[in-house]
Amino acid sequence: MASSTRGQVITCKAAVAYEPNKPLVIEDVQVAPPQAGEVRIKILSTALCHTDHYTWSGKDPEGLFPCILGHEAAGVVESVGEGVTDVQPGDHVIPCYQAECKECKFCKSGKTNLCGKVRSATGAGVMMNDLKSRFSVNGKPIYHFMGTSTFSQYTVVHDVSVAKINPQAPLDKVCLLGCGVSTGLGAVWNTAKVEAGSIVAVFGLGTVGLAVAEGAKAAGASRIIGIDIDSKKFDVAKNFGVTEFVNPKDHDKPIQQVLIDLTDGGVDYSFECIGNVSVMRAALECCHKGWGTSVIVGVAASGQEIATRPFQLVTGRVWKGTAFGGFKSRTHVPWLVEKYLKKEIKVDEYITHNMNLTDINEAFHLLHEGGCLRCVLAVQD
Amino acid sequence: MASSTRGQVITCKAAVAYEPNKPLVIEDVQVAPPQAGEVRIKILSTALCHTDHYTWSGKDPEGLFPCILGHEAAGVVESVGEGVTDVQPGDHVIPCYQAECKECKFCKSGKTNLCGKVRSATGAGVMMNDLKSRFSVNGKPIYHFMGTSTFSQYTVVHDVSVAKINPQAPLDKVCLLGCGVSTGLGAVWNTAKVEAGSIVAVFGLGTVGLAVAEGAKAAGASRIIGIDIDSKKFDVAKNFGVTEFVNPKDHDKPIQQVLIDLTDGGVDYSFECIGNVSVMRAALECCHKGWGTSVIVGVAASGQEIATRPFQLVTGRVWKGTAFGGFKSRTHVPWLVEKYLKKEIKVDEYITHNMNLTDINEAFHLLHEGGCLRCVLAVQD
Ligand SMILES: NC(=O)c1ccc[n+]([C@@H]2O[C@H](COP(=O)([O-])OP(=O)(O)OC[C@H]3O[C@@H](n4cnc5c(N)ncnc54)[C@H](O)[C@@H]3O)[C@@H](O)[C@H]2O)c1
Ligand SMILES: NC(=O)c1ccc[n+]([C@@H]2O[C@H](COP(=O)([O-])OP(=O)(O)OC[C@H]3O[C@@H](n4cnc5c(N)ncnc54)[C@H](O)[C@@H]3O)[C@@H](O)[C@H]2O)c1
Ligand SMILES: [Zn+2]
Ligand SMILES: [Zn+2]
Ligand SMILES: [Zn+2]
Ligand SMILES: [Zn+2]
Repeated sequence: MASSTRGQVITCKAAVAYEPNKPLVIEDVQVAPPQAGEVRIKILSTALCHTDHYTWSGKDPEGLFPCILGHEAAGVVESVGEGVTDVQPGDHVIPCYQAECKECKFCKSGKTNLCGKVRSATGAGVMMNDLKSRFSVNGKPIYHFMGTSTFSQYTVVHDVSVAKINPQAPLDKVCLLGCGVSTGLGAVWNTAKVEAGSIVAVFGLGTVGLAVAEGAKAAGASRIIGIDIDSKKFDVAKNFGVTEFVNPKDHDKPIQQVLIDLTDGGVDYSFECIGNVSVMRAALECCHKGWGTSVIVGVAASGQEIATRPFQLVTGRVWKGTAFGGFKSRTHVPWLVEKYLKKEIKVDEYITHNMNLTDINEAFHLLHEGGCLRCVLAVQD
Repeated sequence: MASSTRGQVITCKAAVAYEPNKPLVIEDVQVAPPQAGEVRIKILSTALCHTDHYTWSGKDPEGLFPCILGHEAAGVVESVGEGVTDVQPGDHVIPCYQAECKECKFCKSGKTNLCGKVRSATGAGVMMNDLKSRFSVNGKPIYHFMGTSTFSQYTVVHDVSVAKINPQAPLDKVCLLGCGVSTGLGAVWNTAKVEAGSIVAVFGLGTVGLAVAEGAKAAGASRIIGIDIDSKKFDVAKNFGVTEFVNPKDHDKPIQQVLIDLTDGGVDYSFECIGNVSVMRAALECCHKGWGTSVIVGVAASGQEIATRPFQLVTGRVWKGTAFGGFKSRTHVPWLVEKYLKKEIKVDEYITHNMNLTDINEAFHLLHEGGCLRCVLAVQD
């Protein structure tokens, strides 16, 4: 791997979001060298996810502009800053929006993947070391996004956010393990811990919901009921393990009642993979009395609230949520890549479109078309 | 034990609730003999609980009148109906509002104590066998309540609702194990599964909250923070394991923020033991990101709803509830009685008042005075 750029500012192409809801601008950006504890990565492939779109749309009150979006990607380490020992130039990596420092109280708790080490900086769109950005355009700083900013040919991330993966893995596929697919699988395996024989309901059959279905199938679920308002989703969903399909629009009864009737009392596990607070309530209330567990995976618009009668919980239902499926990023993303290489989990099947970074505005539009699961962009020319 | 009454209608004293919110009437009632699968119990002691008061007040939309309230009691089996083999006349027992049949899908699940066997009948104020009541006054039926109706010198319950206990246990004490004390202990041990070293918050320091504190202490919690709007509760609470006391009225900040500040990020476990939906929200939101678990124990007024931002759950908090603390009644109530006899759990300490069944209206008033935890009524003359 060439290291002629090491220590230098790199000028490369990136998609800059200057303002909410305005087309991204493909721009020459300057990417400063990594400082202590930082890694500069040459991004080869990035996918688009709804969280990118959510911030871009301006609905995210914590969104900062101008910024470089993107968080579902893969690449190769270009250079590392002082003190970085876990990766070196040439390593194949997936940048992770969820860090894993192995040292903070979250990492050490053994109970959560929500590392706190660099959160204050990534939340503010900057790097920990100097609380500044490594991106600029003509000297004007551009904010980082989720600690990843993968809509760029080069990005700088914290070393605690870099998962080193098997170099044999195709980067234009495994980039998906940086968010959606991992989230869905982990929601089932880590957060809900679905057992064999369980009845599972999946609300929303996008990438995340399909990965939930795949995870539930692997866990031995006996019935996997897919719920979507777009009936076209069912054919694809079958390939991911969904055994039954319900379109709420086909029913007069509330969807929770439809599911309770269909399952003689309710499902053992449900997953909300949409981001709709009314569906989150339905997902809880379709759970079986005494033990049904509902996991919120979808991200609701800011300010919205979930509600239910407390009786739902007093009679034994459990309400949970998950971020990145509970996976510890640096530990588990390489493990997921191995599972993919052994053909134990799907990844290719979620990719419905391939484009170039320069097509990113078109790719954003595709996200809202029923036929699109994931669109992977080739980032280098 | 005399069985001269066996097979006969017994006429005895009971406190009948003829109408919501009207004083109970001490009345001669006729108690029919137990039918198949039923047990007639001579009640020696009964305590009062807020659920009795809630139904009496008319706020319970499922309350049926006239009825005989009461569900926290102990007595001796007078006679049994056909096919009853687990108890016999003379056995000391605690009637349980939560049945345990060991056969239904709930009992067999291994995941819940919410037996479904007789629920449809007890919910309708009648007995399963003929869907009729065993109580009457001058030929007019009086509804059962919670399958227990212990404000009566004799009651008839389903055999799956009778816990046979050690005859050495004082019935005027262990009657409390029929509801409040068991609920609090079980919320900690079964529902939350608090580990040693945990930080625990208890909202509401009545009998249930104090039993939560006691359970948390037994589980090895490092800090047990009691929250109550009545500062007088703190002195008593210390004896049950509460290590710190917070009165929300002493703070301008929302109580969840007070607790987050006090614990460097939030508590590991919280318990709502009041029945107030705003406090339920606070109890969830004062939990630590990543793992904090909140258990709803209090029973809210009908129609009220709990709410929060879904982000609270997506970032790792868990929202649960508990009924009878997750204890399987026939299996665990006798076990709790043994623990009491071995002095491993408190019971006497919750009893602040002793009266007679004839004083029941006065006892109901006491329930709402700060100084009262449990009032135990002697039921026989
Ligand atoms: N918790 C996390 O860590 C995490 C990670 C990644 C994504 N997410 C979130 O997961 C959600 C799903 O992501 P995705 O990429 O699969 O999205 P997607 O848009 O591809 O899929 C959503 C699906 O839900 C369906 N839908 C919409 N409204 C519905 C309704 N009322 N009832 C039933 N179905 C409905 C749509 O037809 C679509 O098929 C998003 O909210 C995303 O932000 C969360
Ligand atoms: N889930 C179950 O199986 C179960 C079983 C028994 C009782 N319960 C319920 O548990 C609850 C508690 O029962 P109890 O007998 O201990 O009641 P209690 O009335 O003796 O105690 C409630 C305490 O909460 C305090 N309080 C009231 N409002 C408050 C507020 N806003 N903030 C802080 N503290 C406040 C009161 O001062 C009191 O000390 C009741 O709702 C009861 O119905 C549930
Ligand atoms: Zn994402
Ligand atoms: Zn960490
Ligand atoms: Zn009670
Ligand atoms: Zn049962």
